[in-house]
Amino acid sequence: MTTTPSISYSFTARLVLPARATAISELTSCIEREGGAVSGLDVTAADNSRLRVDLTVAAADTEQADRIVATMRSVPGVEMGKVSDRTFLAHLGGKLRIEPRVPIRNRDDLSLIYTPGVARVCMAIANQPSDARNLTIKGNTIAVVTDGTAVLGLGDIGPLAALPVMEGKAALFKRFADIDAFPICLDTTDTEEIIAAVKAISPVFAGINLEDISAPRCFEIEERLRRELDIPVFHDDQHGTAIVVLAALRNALRVAGKGLPDVRIVMSGAGAAGTAILKLLLLAGARDVVVSDADGIVTPTRPDIASGENPSLMWSATHTNPREVSGTLRDALVGADVFVGVSAPNILTGDDIATMAPDSVVFALANPVPEVDLNEAAQHALVVASGRSDFANQINNVLVFPGVFRGLLNASSRKVTPEVLLAAADALAGVVRPEELNPTYIVPSVFHPDVTRTVANAVSSAAAGR
Amino acid sequence: MTTTPSISYSFTARLVLPARATAISELTSCIEREGGAVSGLDVTAADNSRLRVDLTVAAADTEQADRIVATMRSVPGVEMGKVSDRTFLAHLGGKLRIEPRVPIRNRDDLSLIYTPGVARVCMAIANQPSDARNLTIKGNTIAVVTDGTAVLGLGDIGPLAALPVMEGKAALFKRFADIDAFPICLDTTDTEEIIAAVKAISPVFAGINLEDISAPRCFEIEERLRRELDIPVFHDDQHGTAIVVLAALRNALRVAGKGLPDVRIVMSGAGAAGTAILKLLLLAGARDVVVSDADGIVTPTRPDIASGENPSLMWSATHTNPREVSGTLRDALVGADVFVGVSAPNILTGDDIATMAPDSVVFALANPVPEVDLNEAAQHALVVASGRSDFANQINNVLVFPGVFRGLLNASSRKVTPEVLLAAADALAGVVRPEELNPTYIVPSVFHPDVTRTVANAVSSAAAGR
Repeated sequence: MTTTPSISYSFTARLVLPARATAISELTSCIEREGGAVSGLDVTAADNSRLRVDLTVAAADTEQADRIVATMRSVPGVEMGKVSDRTFLAHLGGKLRIEPRVPIRNRDDLSLIYTPGVARVCMAIANQPSDARNLTIKGNTIAVVTDGTAVLGLGDIGPLAALPVMEGKAALFKRFADIDAFPICLDTTDTEEIIAAVKAISPVFAGINLEDISAPRCFEIEERLRRELDIPVFHDDQHGTAIVVLAALRNALRVAGKGLPDVRIVMSGAGAAGTAILKLLLLAGARDVVVSDADGIVTPTRPDIASGENPSLMWSATHTNPREVSGTLRDALVGADVFVGVSAPNILTGDDIATMAPDSVVFALANPVPEVDLNEAAQHALVVASGRSDFANQINNVLVFPGVFRGLLNASSRKVTPEVLLAAADALAGVVRPEELNPTYIVPSVFHPDVTRTVANAVSSAAAGR
Repeated sequence: MTTTPSISYSFTARLVLPARATAISELTSCIEREGGAVSGLDVTAADNSRLRVDLTVAAADTEQADRIVATMRSVPGVEMGKVSDRTFLAHLGGKLRIEPRVPIRNRDDLSLIYTPGVARVCMAIANQPSDARNLTIKGNTIAVVTDGTAVLGLGDIGPLAALPVMEGKAALFKRFADIDAFPICLDTTDTEEIIAAVKAISPVFAGINLEDISAPRCFEIEERLRRELDIPVFHDDQHGTAIVVLAALRNALRVAGKGLPDVRIVMSGAGAAGTAILKLLLLAGARDVVVSDADGIVTPTRPDIASGENPSLMWSATHTNPREVSGTLRDALVGADVFVGVSAPNILTGDDIATMAPDSVVFALANPVPEVDLNEAAQHALVVASGRSDFANQINNVLVFPGVFRGLLNASSRKVTPEVLLAAADALAGVVRPEELNPTYIVPSVFHPDVTRTVANAVSSAAAGR
């Protein structure tokens, strides 16, 4: 599968061109020959013989970008100036800022928001701690917490290198749900130290969003924090993904005219996301799920599982595979209605998808390279979804985490329940109206104006037990 | 000493008045009889027989505010509506917000600041960690850290009730030094747990401002964090106070025509602030300091000090009192040139100040009630300073902490040295020009436009070893 030029690999070059009629077309054709796409051309100055130009070019990756710059230099008469990577430019100085919500113009303002006025507010909270949600930032503030061990597809890059992702996430919380989110990147990978640090900093926050913490530590960290804190704790890689998958699957099955309790589901991947998806699918009514991982189909008798070393795998083994299918992922796939992959690139082919039942649904969510070539899968499946933004049906957590936390904060919720996850999935699925539904539109755009509000209202009601 | 009406105890009352000529004056006179000050009157609606009015009134404390409201109700024909406390109104929703610094308008924006674009920025930092100061918020972000054990004059009110102070401080960092500061209120008072938590969260920050942590734990916490972190750690209650005191004292002695090495200094208070002030005064050249606390003059032979239980007191005892003065604070004060109090209210009288040397300097910094009545002190001393905003010469840490951190961040500094503290004090003193100097103007206003920049430049140079 080829990758197309993307803004995330785009650069802006300042250059000087000779003022001959063909100069610009020579430049753009050589860029296009290398596979780049010109996305902007601004003339910033000119004289009788020359043009000064800012040219923005999208490439598919950094190597291609380097080749494009080299070929631009080779156009006769072109003088290349500074080449700026647009992604790095967008990150200069970081992606968040903290601003006062109150004016500080004079001594009167100071005495209202700082000493001596602030003392009365402190005492009010000391006497009635629940007032902190009204009188401080706590009511609208969450922490985006990572230890940097499982960042995107990059793996264990550490807390400092994880910060750009956490800042981005915090920015999305504000953009989509008006939530103040602050990145907490922990300089420890020890489960107990992570739990202790998050508990220690918890007073300022009304919720904890765990992010990019590797399995199996993420399970214990989440479970312990949920038990020991009085604010909701949500591991987006697990539950955010599970909610979007369930929402997308509900709509995909509507398109296929099938019911969740009746379909055969095959999953590839039994890590953090896979386990969370499995649990939510079962809770939503799925009855026939076969889970497979790198070692084959997950069964209670598989030696590594029977040993009991991995309680999470044992749970999956004992709650799935009612028909006792054995063998490989490929064996399980024959006649299946649904494939959900959260595992590894290119483990299946179009021919494998062809063995599935008619009107099959394929969610190939490994990123950036899916479990099966999406174009090949689409030859055989009715509905294909992936994590990619350049294909239809992107399974994107941004559809979920802003609305989930908005709903939890609105309800002053102290915990995340399975009912909250279900309600969020059903609400998200419902944003796509019946008359809009089709095989290439099973989830709304992240910029759909109703998404956050709809999910938030459903979560808020479910959290309040209504 | 009476307190005057203040905006920090002001309220706005919505009320309806009969449209008789004297109604407003009846209302304002009864408010003034109770000691309140009308600071605003807005007519919001009127008909032929009535006025709807928003009346803002400053009181000296909450009891007086209650009495004023009661007396307002007694004016014939007045209907009182909602009474809103302006301090609480200013705190609704908290005092900070977190905003994206980048636009998120469409899928292209998303792919630049989040996946997939962000991955390259993460890898750049993984390969070159120092790039985090340019490519993330780290370069301009500090933590304001407390455990809520010594908040203002309120004492141990806990981390949640301390949050309004930390938010206020963070707001001041932005207002005065364009620094992004985030409040970290720790739900533990255990020294080791505090150190572990601050170390754990440190990757996101370029500096740590410790705040309102009680002595003696604050000494070990600061010392350990300074040793174990590679970013500057500054306990404002200690060093911020010490810097302003030294700056103010330099200018006060200029007014008095005396030199720091030559004067006799008496200090009251040997806690966190007192010890930091003492160390900075000695570093700046003071040679004759006598320290006293609730148990009398601090000497190596005082039983509680000789026991060695309090290393900080022992340090003070062995570095002060060259003339081996014995007895009480009052004994030490006779013939002294300078008194610096960071201790308790009303422990001295004007008569005590009268025993000091001619042209004496009195810094009575206990807050809100100083060590000596400021008006009485002013009968005998040449220069009087306090922590109060309603007298001349307010010793206010806001003069220092924004500029100190601005300078440290500008220099990408990894530590706070004694030279940095001295440079900050001298720079702050220098903001008051020689031709401006007088007994009632030894420190600039916190709103003086040069303060932060001047302090920051001096700190930045000192931190860089220039």
